[in-house]
Amino acid sequence: MDVGLFHHLGYSTKMSGEMDKPLISRHLLDSDGSLAEVPSEAPKVGILGSGDFARSLAARLVSSGFSVVVGSRNPKRTAGLFPSAAQVTFQADAVESPDVIFVAMFREHYSSLCGLSDQLAGKILVDVSNPTEQEHLRHHESNAEYLASLFPTCTVVKAFNVISAWTLQSGPRDGNRQVPMCSDQPEAKRAVSEVVRAMGFMPVDMGSLASAREVEAMPLRLLPGWKVPALLALGLFTFFYVYNFIRDVLQPYVREGKSKFYKLPVSVVNTTLPCVAYVLLSLVYLPGVLAAALQLRRGTKYRRFPDWLDHWLQHRKQLGLLSFLCAALHALYSFCLPLGRVNRYEVVNLAIKQVLANKSHLWIEEEVWRMEIYLSLGVLALGTLSLLAVTSLPSIANSLNWREFSFVQSTLGFVALVLSTLHTLTYGWTRAFEDSHYKFYLPPTFTLTLLVPCVVILAKALFLLPCFSRRLSRIRRGWEKDGAAKFMLPMDHALAQKTSHV
Amino acid sequence: MDVGLFHHLGYSTKMSGEMDKPLISRHLLDSDGSLAEVPSEAPKVGILGSGDFARSLAARLVSSGFSVVVGSRNPKRTAGLFPSAAQVTFQADAVESPDVIFVAMFREHYSSLCGLSDQLAGKILVDVSNPTEQEHLRHHESNAEYLASLFPTCTVVKAFNVISAWTLQSGPRDGNRQVPMCSDQPEAKRAVSEVVRAMGFMPVDMGSLASAREVEAMPLRLLPGWKVPALLALGLFTFFYVYNFIRDVLQPYVREGKSKFYKLPVSVVNTTLPCVAYVLLSLVYLPGVLAAALQLRRGTKYRRFPDWLDHWLQHRKQLGLLSFLCAALHALYSFCLPLGRVNRYEVVNLAIKQVLANKSHLWIEEEVWRMEIYLSLGVLALGTLSLLAVTSLPSIANSLNWREFSFVQSTLGFVALVLSTLHTLTYGWTRAFEDSHYKFYLPPTFTLTLLVPCVVILAKALFLLPCFSRRLSRIRRGWEKDGAAKFMLPMDHALAQKTSHV
Amino acid sequence: MDVGLFHHLGYSTKMSGEMDKPLISRHLLDSDGSLAEVPSEAPKVGILGSGDFARSLAARLVSSGFSVVVGSRNPKRTAGLFPSAAQVTFQADAVESPDVIFVAMFREHYSSLCGLSDQLAGKILVDVSNPTEQEHLRHHESNAEYLASLFPTCTVVKAFNVISAWTLQSGPRDGNRQVPMCSDQPEAKRAVSEVVRAMGFMPVDMGSLASAREVEAMPLRLLPGWKVPALLALGLFTFFYVYNFIRDVLQPYVREGKSKFYKLPVSVVNTTLPCVAYVLLSLVYLPGVLAAALQLRRGTKYRRFPDWLDHWLQHRKQLGLLSFLCAALHALYSFCLPLGRVNRYEVVNLAIKQVLANKSHLWIEEEVWRMEIYLSLGVLALGTLSLLAVTSLPSIANSLNWREFSFVQSTLGFVALVLSTLHTLTYGWTRAFEDSHYKFYLPPTFTLTLLVPCVVILAKALFLLPCFSRRLSRIRRGWEKDGAAKFMLPMDHALAQKTSHV
Repeated sequence: MDVGLFHHLGYSTKMSGEMDKPLISRHLLDSDGSLAEVPSEAPKVGILGSGDFARSLAARLVSSGFSVVVGSRNPKRTAGLFPSAAQVTFQADAVESPDVIFVAMFREHYSSLCGLSDQLAGKILVDVSNPTEQEHLRHHESNAEYLASLFPTCTVVKAFNVISAWTLQSGPRDGNRQVPMCSDQPEAKRAVSEVVRAMGFMPVDMGSLASAREVEAMPLRLLPGWKVPALLALGLFTFFYVYNFIRDVLQPYVREGKSKFYKLPVSVVNTTLPCVAYVLLSLVYLPGVLAAALQLRRGTKYRRFPDWLDHWLQHRKQLGLLSFLCAALHALYSFCLPLGRVNRYEVVNLAIKQVLANKSHLWIEEEVWRMEIYLSLGVLALGTLSLLAVTSLPSIANSLNWREFSFVQSTLGFVALVLSTLHTLTYGWTRAFEDSHYKFYLPPTFTLTLLVPCVVILAKALFLLPCFSRRLSRIRRGWEKDGAAKFMLPMDHALAQKTSHV
Repeated sequence: MDVGLFHHLGYSTKMSGEMDKPLISRHLLDSDGSLAEVPSEAPKVGILGSGDFARSLAARLVSSGFSVVVGSRNPKRTAGLFPSAAQVTFQADAVESPDVIFVAMFREHYSSLCGLSDQLAGKILVDVSNPTEQEHLRHHESNAEYLASLFPTCTVVKAFNVISAWTLQSGPRDGNRQVPMCSDQPEAKRAVSEVVRAMGFMPVDMGSLASAREVEAMPLRLLPGWKVPALLALGLFTFFYVYNFIRDVLQPYVREGKSKFYKLPVSVVNTTLPCVAYVLLSLVYLPGVLAAALQLRRGTKYRRFPDWLDHWLQHRKQLGLLSFLCAALHALYSFCLPLGRVNRYEVVNLAIKQVLANKSHLWIEEEVWRMEIYLSLGVLALGTLSLLAVTSLPSIANSLNWREFSFVQSTLGFVALVLSTLHTLTYGWTRAFEDSHYKFYLPPTFTLTLLVPCVVILAKALFLLPCFSRRLSRIRRGWEKDGAAKFMLPMDHALAQKTSHV
Repeated sequence: MDVGLFHHLGYSTKMSGEMDKPLISRHLLDSDGSLAEVPSEAPKVGILGSGDFARSLAARLVSSGFSVVVGSRNPKRTAGLFPSAAQVTFQADAVESPDVIFVAMFREHYSSLCGLSDQLAGKILVDVSNPTEQEHLRHHESNAEYLASLFPTCTVVKAFNVISAWTLQSGPRDGNRQVPMCSDQPEAKRAVSEVVRAMGFMPVDMGSLASAREVEAMPLRLLPGWKVPALLALGLFTFFYVYNFIRDVLQPYVREGKSKFYKLPVSVVNTTLPCVAYVLLSLVYLPGVLAAALQLRRGTKYRRFPDWLDHWLQHRKQLGLLSFLCAALHALYSFCLPLGRVNRYEVVNLAIKQVLANKSHLWIEEEVWRMEIYLSLGVLALGTLSLLAVTSLPSIANSLNWREFSFVQSTLGFVALVLSTLHTLTYGWTRAFEDSHYKFYLPPTFTLTLLVPCVVILAKALFLLPCFSRRLSRIRRGWEKDGAAKFMLPMDHALAQKTSHV
């Protein structure tokens, strides 16, 4: 690897390095290796491979101002697949001139390149491969490290594996432009960084080539942050569904022989969903309360939270969104109630009953009030939750400053929790205190859900008391109790700051 | 164009070029042409014009660290309109010192600059003009090419026309920061690229000045990806609306003399919308099935799909979102049903009928079950569709890796299709087999809509059979049937990879 | 500040400056001050402080390829808190070698650094502090200026205060990557810009250090654009709620002794919300009409609008979104109506009444039609409004070109206004002309809301007349009436262009 590499790459993307030199000198320097049809100053990169990825890579590199040489075992056949500005030639010819060569082949074909060892010596090989889950599990060594072991005289850089051929072609839009990369050679990493930047992506340094396995695992991840919250929501749903089934369907069937199985698709689901939504919402705010309590007790924010609390804190967004999803489904199911036949038959039968009983006017003031307040609180709680959900969208969250984000997520979120609690309490009304609602000795479902939220609300109220609030704000400002430092643990305390806003 | 240009521009934005030189030398180099009030090292750019765009451009350039000279025919009058850091002077004076000059004028005034030909010789002129649709159609030559023809000694670069004066002023936020640009002179393109980057935008190279017409057409486009899907949705809506009108309104009127025209605003719309939503959703998944079938038959993924299939594949997002829109409107219309008078009168009349018939209890178990299942499936289908819609938002789509995106769009999307099919089937129940529902010999509407979705679901099931799925995954991994290569066609096969995930 | 600084920083991030120099020379240059464990070519930065921010900063700098030296009063204790790649040492040792030093301490501790004055001479100090609101109000001098006054031999750059420790750690995602910075020394600003860019953020030049107070106020702002619109919405809500309360609850109570207080939670809210939504929507389009009228009268677009109109134009997005929020809540409340007891009792009592009156069939054709049209228009208006709301999302707004954005916001928005007007008119039907609806002589609420929207619609229709539309489009193209220029006022006329699209 000589100075020429930096010359080529550095020049093209940033016009740096040579700006204060007369143009003529550059032409002299470049004239040796350049292709006739490409402006002489375009830096040259090589590509080995002719699959989708190789072709998309070539197209993107060409449109980013690079001079691209593609190495193929059968140049004639593959030439038509590449953009016309790319030069397609035999592998041995292709690797000669460029210093950076993209290896866009499957792992099983890496060894077929061994014949090029001499020409490749000293070059930078960019491993862009993306193993499948099976391959990833089968091989203990990452593709990039395997490539490095085959070509000890080359420098291997792992990069671009998170980018799909499609993204390469359509160009990086707003959003995920990050290209994690790693290598044992900082120079090589920088050279490839330049190419990454020139293509409109943002290089992210992941360290040495030993991280390649981790980088290769990245595109294999499947919504990792959602797994635990989704399972939790599913577990809560199952529990409350069974509980409601026993109370609303099984008990009438066993005790009174009434078949209320028609309640399974809508009614039982609709009493289950709000329970799940409500418990999930309280679980969003519980870890913040626990973290504050821990900080108060420890007298410092510079001590790491237990792992479970850390993870919990990091999954609050997902818990909140699942809570919103359940609440929204609850609203939809509720709006469906008057569309079903049950409601219609009930109203008709009620009218018949009134007529038969010779009653001319039906009006129960308490029921009217209970339902009106219950519905109004429900709408307001859902409205507040949807504001929270909207501000969780990446593009909106990022347009807010820290204070605005925490105002919305923390203040509005707490308002939503209080509104939900009132919604639940109005729903319950006096039922918790009436024997007839303890079917099979099971308390009404809503009473079960009230526990956690009430703890959260009480704790938040407690922390507002001057004695606690003053101590908390001092701790969050960096103050430490005497002797608090002895348990000090390393890094990732940014969480401390994060929670201090919640 | 001399070294000085690169010196000026290169320095400012990247601090490159001179880093390894003592500062004193730069001061010497710059001292000749710099203005007194601007730090000597700020690169200088010129602007000709005093309209909105010129002023916003000046403001942005100044705040990006450039020294700006504005050329005006009446400097005294226009000076007040520009930021105070910009120097406003006569045109001839303004173009003297900078090497890059923005021409922010209407095409009809280009020729007024001809008197400056001598001063402009060798300079880079940036054409930022944005023709109206009429102008674009009237002139066969792009504004930039026209400018280049007027000043043959200058290099013209087309750029910034997609950026509004407003965006220039408020600064590029997250999102569309791309500035397509083109020129016949790579050096000039690079120099302007530097300015673009320094202003916080991202230059996109569109090739030679011959592309200027295309670049100028960009801001004229009006949601091109939505035209065909929107027309299709409109066509489907019209067809189903007329069909439902004939069956639900016209037939009762003609046969029984009943006026059911009150059904036009809500009821007929609400039976039409789910049909459109359902057919559109199936059309999202049909092209993927066709592509897979084509690949299976051809035995390779390296052959281009027919154009119609390509276009169809590229419009799936729009089709899906329109499907969601129709489904959401269907939900809203359904929730409105109990609010209307029709429902109220029906219930009252049903109660009266029961009383008159001396029936004390109304309950039809089958109807209850049908509606409960139907409603529950509808809510679940809409819920799943809304998850799909949310992950289509650019900022969310970009935070997902390829696997996550395809899991949501492909797996969840298919779940939504199956749920919709079950929703439709429960709606239909036994109606398809009862003569009374064949009004005017027309089959019930829902039977018409079932065709395409059932084909898609069956095909998807078929492709899961080992014989097909194994062959398909081999093809998508790059395997080719003997002789499949002979039909090979060039580039844009990234689609192949794209569809392989769907 | 010597050449070395530029050497260090310039090299690392852009690989510029030295590309055309043999590698060996760099090693020689760097060998003096580099740490053994870090590659010699990594540029070195210092950090003073050991709080959350200091640690997150260190982590981010290390992962961006910098060699980080942290100065602490107690290196042994704090070393464990920092990433292992960062060198933690005594303050005096830490500030010796790097040219750029981040001061990540509270303002009250700045003076504790005075002992380092000699070592710090000539260095760049980056003030990253983020005062609380109280501190910001207490001190008239910004933290950065205070720091500069303590160290007159240093150059102070204000930067990074808008970035939270959390964002530093998790890395800049899509969105708010902007880092406003200011300093009196352009060289220092550029050097820090390089660091900002290397960390994946985007530097935004805010001018001289006198702007530091403004920069420090940025993270303190709390949704400033929402304050006036939210207060306006609240004011309108209060007014219409009281008005509806008097008409719907108080009047029946006073005049007829009927207690309708149960209407407070849902019914009165639900007649109030659409009024607020409707008036807010019309206030989105009124300023555009006023601006056009003003331009027509003045005969030029080059004159500044009055301040109140400017502000109004800038708050249209917020007004529109609040209008959508109210409309959506109105829909939710409406869908809740059939769920309440009031509706059920009304239907039952209506059925009883019919039976007692011996009427066998209830059907009022006019009522049926009125409600069907009213509901359908409502759904369509809400659907259109939600399209507007969706295109207001930053990530979607930015994927549209100017023409598409203005098509959606202006054309669709006007359609929504017309649909809402028709929705209101069908709701009103003939009520405005019936004495019985003038309770306490107050006209029906809907008549009050119609005023502004009708003015807007009429004015828009008027501007379509050839005489006005031709003159307007000429003005917006830059034409001016004779003598219009005499009132010319400076900058921010980009608004003129903005409004010309609306």
